[in-house]
Amino acid sequence: MTKPNDLLPEGLQDRLPAEAARITAAMRACLDVLGAHGYDRVRPPLLEFEAALVGRMAGVTVGETSAMFRFVDPASLRTLALRSDMTPQVGRIASTSLAAAPRPLRLAYCGDTVVIKASQLDPAREHLQLGAELIGADSVAAAGEVVMLAVEALKAAGLTGISVDFTLPDLVDTLAEKAFPLDAGQIEGVRRELDTKDAGGLKAAGGAAYLPLLYATGPFEGALAALRAVDAGGALETRLDALEQIAAHIGDAARITLDPTERHGFEYQSWLGFTLYADGLRRAAGRGGTYRIAGSDEAATGFTLYLDRLADAAPQPEAARVCYLPFGHDRSAAAALRAAGWRTRAQLADGEDARALGCGWTLEQGEPVAL
Amino acid sequence: MTKPNDLLPEGLQDRLPAEAARITAAMRACLDVLGAHGYDRVRPPLLEFEAALVGRMAGVTVGETSAMFRFVDPASLRTLALRSDMTPQVGRIASTSLAAAPRPLRLAYCGDTVVIKASQLDPAREHLQLGAELIGADSVAAAGEVVMLAVEALKAAGLTGISVDFTLPDLVDTLAEKAFPLDAGQIEGVRRELDTKDAGGLKAAGGAAYLPLLYATGPFEGALAALRAVDAGGALETRLDALEQIAAHIGDAARITLDPTERHGFEYQSWLGFTLYADGLRRAAGRGGTYRIAGSDEAATGFTLYLDRLADAAPQPEAARVCYLPFGHDRSAAAALRAAGWRTRAQLADGEDARALGCGWTLEQGEPVAL
Repeated sequence: MTKPNDLLPEGLQDRLPAEAARITAAMRACLDVLGAHGYDRVRPPLLEFEAALVGRMAGVTVGETSAMFRFVDPASLRTLALRSDMTPQVGRIASTSLAAAPRPLRLAYCGDTVVIKASQLDPAREHLQLGAELIGADSVAAAGEVVMLAVEALKAAGLTGISVDFTLPDLVDTLAEKAFPLDAGQIEGVRRELDTKDAGGLKAAGGAAYLPLLYATGPFEGALAALRAVDAGGALETRLDALEQIAAHIGDAARITLDPTERHGFEYQSWLGFTLYADGLRRAAGRGGTYRIAGSDEAATGFTLYLDRLADAAPQPEAARVCYLPFGHDRSAAAALRAAGWRTRAQLADGEDARALGCGWTLEQGEPVAL
Repeated sequence: MTKPNDLLPEGLQDRLPAEAARITAAMRACLDVLGAHGYDRVRPPLLEFEAALVGRMAGVTVGETSAMFRFVDPASLRTLALRSDMTPQVGRIASTSLAAAPRPLRLAYCGDTVVIKASQLDPAREHLQLGAELIGADSVAAAGEVVMLAVEALKAAGLTGISVDFTLPDLVDTLAEKAFPLDAGQIEGVRRELDTKDAGGLKAAGGAAYLPLLYATGPFEGALAALRAVDAGGALETRLDALEQIAAHIGDAARITLDPTERHGFEYQSWLGFTLYADGLRRAAGRGGTYRIAGSDEAATGFTLYLDRLADAAPQPEAARVCYLPFGHDRSAAAALRAAGWRTRAQLADGEDARALGCGWTLEQGEPVAL
């Protein structure tokens, strides 16, 4: 039955009932966790002026800001963009409409985002993004709250085997300034070779002193000890102490790993970045970190989950019992069943097959009778 | 603090916490009603190939199909459109992926839609659309179910004073064929004058016989009686009997009115259209009717609600109690409060003002103490 023009563009897809039910259940569970921890939801629009969105993404690489669909608005004759990320929108709201709200300001969001081009790692161009932003704080306490909140949200969505991978986005800058000096021209090369974990390249780039960082990775305690050994001069001491405090706050709620040189996707984070994983997911369930809001330069800490990805590993919500309602059924009995958590499907024509319509019961004399 | 590039494009807006909470509460309440009546949610993407979306909107006026933002997809080099309505997407899913699912097929949806140009009646260009489609049926029973479902959803969202205004989209065609003949060239003129309710224009357009229709409008019983008087030849009998049965099914759940010549917005409906109103709303809360799915020509009945509009009149959800969690608080006591429906906000820095952060209580020795 599928005709050519029924096909969807690459990276876009329909979510049919079973998958949509998983997404909806995961979304409600996560939003409820965010709400319970005092985060208030805001709803920014799908489209904004391109200049405003890009301006709010300062620090984000060109690759990210050029990831948006753009088009001219006949109403303003200005270029609009379809959001590829809601975080800059929440930053905008915090800096404008909610500029006068007391800090720390806790905001939550959930909505569709679209990128113009899929990445090698992820063929999807549409994502249902859900997240929380803690605005006015990027302290250890703030980071601990946000990481724990992300873990709790993933658990509420039914995910298991959750792990948090920490990174230190400004690690090279900090070490270059305080411990292992690099020329301005060398910094980018050293960052790149650390990113690709290429020991030979790292030496060639003048970063021999940074070699031990390549091995300070893996399960948290060992990697942290390795980092402390590298950090004889104490340049990283406050950061490493901070990681230790955050890890203590998480306790055994999640497995913790450390990959201090991982930069990908943390272009706008400041001292801390983290990636969230869970059993059954090939890609990250989400990510977060500390940053400064472009424009206002206010400190903030937040995370984003990709609900559509996450729903691949989330459990199927338990199906409610479905009762068929034949012609002339007792309408108040049907309403009572629905109020008690049943689903009903009413007869519309003669000769319907109630079982084929997904009904395991039928209403007879006001009572559900198994089919 | 608002800088020029923080302003949003015309017809697009942020929903701040109080409004976002009303929208979310209304959305959940409506979706729960749809789910309880056996409607399964599907999630189509924000973007589709323009040709596919327009092809699915056959019967819709040019004004509607040209209402979409369009842009070229670098991946396919084809034109994409940002959806302005989710109904054609649900029709597409029913005709393709779910073509083999038993009928009647009950589907629900909820998502953002955008039009390129605001209308005179509604300055918003973005709408959060929620609806239900009953696919494979456009009978009286189907219409009764769908109208009642819309009314129940509005009530669940907390709206009051709900009214349903019926119209008969193919009224002029039916009467022209069976009762008051018109030349092919006259039909459009008669429709237009009935639409503007211009008695003089109607006579001039050759539609003198249609004059009584202008007065068959208002509260259901009187308007129906007036229509029956016009319909001496019985051309409308089955339709009027159908309206009467639907009205009987609704009973006193909503006020019912009839405006048989209203066409605006019902360009793709077949024998029945309806508009939903509620106290406190300047514009319609939603609309629906019977139609045929473009492409497959399958009969269907459905409705759409505009959640963002509707939330203007929906009650503010009751605020949960918020408890401040000072440094070193009892974490399991805090978790127990959240599990019992409280919200918590944790201390992040010395000198915070718990009351300014919206907390009415603080946790002391594991117990909430009023501030």
